Amino acid sequence: MSEVIHKARAAKEAAAVLNRLTSAEKDNALLLMADALITQQEQILAANEEDLARGRELGTSASLLDRLKLTPARLKDISDAVKQIVELPDPVGDLLETYHRPNGLFIEKRRVPLGVIGIIYEARPNVTVDAATLCLKSGNSAVLRGGSAAISSNRSIIAVLREALSRSVIPADALQLIEDANRSSVDEMLELNGLLDVIIPRGGASLIQNVVQNATVPVIETGAGICHTYIDESGDYAMAEAIAVNAKAQRPSVCNSMETLLVHETFARKHLGAMAGKFREVHVELRGCDITKEIVPWANSATEEDYATEYNDYILNVKVVGNLDEALSHIQRYGTKHSECIVTETVNHAERFLQEVDAAAVYHNASTRFTDGFEFGFGAEIGISTQKLHARGPMGLPALTSTKYRVVGSGQIRS
Amino acid sequence: MSEVIHKARAAKEAAAVLNRLTSAEKDNALLLMADALITQQEQILAANEEDLARGRELGTSASLLDRLKLTPARLKDISDAVKQIVELPDPVGDLLETYHRPNGLFIEKRRVPLGVIGIIYEARPNVTVDAATLCLKSGNSAVLRGGSAAISSNRSIIAVLREALSRSVIPADALQLIEDANRSSVDEMLELNGLLDVIIPRGGASLIQNVVQNATVPVIETGAGICHTYIDESGDYAMAEAIAVNAKAQRPSVCNSMETLLVHETFARKHLGAMAGKFREVHVELRGCDITKEIVPWANSATEEDYATEYNDYILNVKVVGNLDEALSHIQRYGTKHSECIVTETVNHAERFLQEVDAAAVYHNASTRFTDGFEFGFGAEIGISTQKLHARGPMGLPALTSTKYRVVGSGQIRS
Repeated sequence: MSEVIHKARAAKEAAAVLNRLTSAEKDNALLLMADALITQQEQILAANEEDLARGRELGTSASLLDRLKLTPARLKDISDAVKQIVELPDPVGDLLETYHRPNGLFIEKRRVPLGVIGIIYEARPNVTVDAATLCLKSGNSAVLRGGSAAISSNRSIIAVLREALSRSVIPADALQLIEDANRSSVDEMLELNGLLDVIIPRGGASLIQNVVQNATVPVIETGAGICHTYIDESGDYAMAEAIAVNAKAQRPSVCNSMETLLVHETFARKHLGAMAGKFREVHVELRGCDITKEIVPWANSATEEDYATEYNDYILNVKVVGNLDEALSHIQRYGTKHSECIVTETVNHAERFLQEVDAAAVYHNASTRFTDGFEFGFGAEIGISTQKLHARGPMGLPALTSTKYRVVGSGQIRS
Repeated sequence: MSEVIHKARAAKEAAAVLNRLTSAEKDNALLLMADALITQQEQILAANEEDLARGRELGTSASLLDRLKLTPARLKDISDAVKQIVELPDPVGDLLETYHRPNGLFIEKRRVPLGVIGIIYEARPNVTVDAATLCLKSGNSAVLRGGSAAISSNRSIIAVLREALSRSVIPADALQLIEDANRSSVDEMLELNGLLDVIIPRGGASLIQNVVQNATVPVIETGAGICHTYIDESGDYAMAEAIAVNAKAQRPSVCNSMETLLVHETFARKHLGAMAGKFREVHVELRGCDITKEIVPWANSATEEDYATEYNDYILNVKVVGNLDEALSHIQRYGTKHSECIVTETVNHAERFLQEVDAAAVYHNASTRFTDGFEFGFGAEIGISTQKLHARGPMGLPALTSTKYRVVGSGQIRS
């Protein structure tokens, strides 16, 4: 039996136990995990150093090494994040609906765990802890497959967390790490219907596309964001500038940052020159349409491909449009249904934009950077769904649950 | 451009219009459709006769011909069902949650249509109308691919319905029928990411498995049901018999009927002989374990394969178990997570069963035959989901919607 099947089976058996535990029992286990990350940090940091040394040898970029690196301060943050998850309400058991039927049947719809969740992610050891604890809090077993560049860190973290579980009532088998670094272990997970209830990919576009294209297990698609901000003719200049610069430059590497700025021509002829200066100050390269280049001579040319690219970098497309409809059709064509914003003082334009744009989150006069479980007040985030089924937008703990109808009768039969 | 792509694109464009319509506008269109099915019934019945003639020539079974057949009375029922859908509340726009954030952002989570729904189904003309109207009522375009044996009926029905739409504000293109009878048109639909938002298969196990295994478009899995009834030691005999006979024999062809009866040994030794007689009366073949055959000499032997088979017929597996745990593990092994029932007077056994069995609907002292959108009071049913994501169990109109976060600010940026 392969490692993947062996561990997924163990996770499934553990899930049946997890399903019967109280919130207090799960929270107690999470607290033991949070403490263990601190008390056993030396072994984790030593393992992390192995990963870093290997990465340096392979010539891994500084930014990737930084994402891989753990320090006592970062472990403290990771441990504190687990304690915050403990404080969140447990969604399992929540009563969503009740129906009393005329025939006397009493029907309840309640939240239940999904079962076994597979998470496929990159070489980020913090995701190992985050994904593991969010799954357990919501009553699910987790089968984790992280990037192989973090394998020593992940092995050590999982060993520490499973040891903590062994002191709790959650079976240690509820937490599984796939150690096989071959791509085939990912492929095997993607087709593990019956053992995995859902797969959540977390990472870049190619990782996510591989999962979406090849999985037969149901997937929650997360991530890719080509987000737009449209500045309407009536947009307030100061507000528009603040929102646009924030959406692009506050943290360009994340999925809710802006990739293309759409500007109404009247606004552009008055203000785009000044706004371009602001982007230049924060080192953002502009790629513009013809009118943009006329107004901003130092801008480069934007191609069709640029409009379809998620840069995650200090690069911004700028396109001047004649009206709201042109902006809407550009977004319809190039958007990834993630986060889209209009800056306007015209109420019916705002309403049309909020109504007609097909995206997980639509904004009027606020930065798209707010699409985030913490900013939305969920207290946690397992990812940002860009699909329409099950969960859309930032996902908190309830997104890790399913539902069950409990029907209580007194001998009812169907006629 | 292929027929599938051409029609899916047209459906997507129409979906943008549909998304802006009011409930009254959609209901008005549905009423025109309901009327057209009656006023233009002659052409539909003539087309149906073509399908029936072709079917008889090909030696199609009487039961399949019956599913294919339309009559004035059946068309009246189908038309009345559309009028019932008109009466249901429109889920689109429903406010699910609101958040006022400390920074002044106002966040609303509202229901929105999914967009374009692909439905792949068998040669049942009634499903054509049902699927079309449920999709339109919930603001979605529909791309329908029915079994080729019903192609003349479907063409005629869709022509009638599209003509009715052309007299309403819903674009006729919101309703598309794929006429290409080749299997390749199904394959093409399954990979139409970006044009189809979801695919719902409706039909037998092989149709559903083909969709689940091969689709890259998100799927809502419906259907297959290997449902169990467990009669506990304390089960009331009269109630147990009524529920078991109803679950098996009231309508064996449907997914919520029982395939395997599990009986506690003490109960079996007292009552299984009498109960077997009742099954014999309604012409149900029994396939039993060794103890069953000892008690019911005329029962055949049940094999492992029998326990894993959805008969949808007058055949029932009977297995005697020593206790609740044995029943639970049999269900865990052979169940399809559809509908499962316990008959017991022991409260903590009922609670354990309802809590521990992993299924869309779990019953205490009532027939599994109630797993149905109409019986649950939803007023409609697009299918019964056996997956855990998005929707589980009977699906009414809300299962055909997604959600959108609408965020209204006054210039908020992220720090």
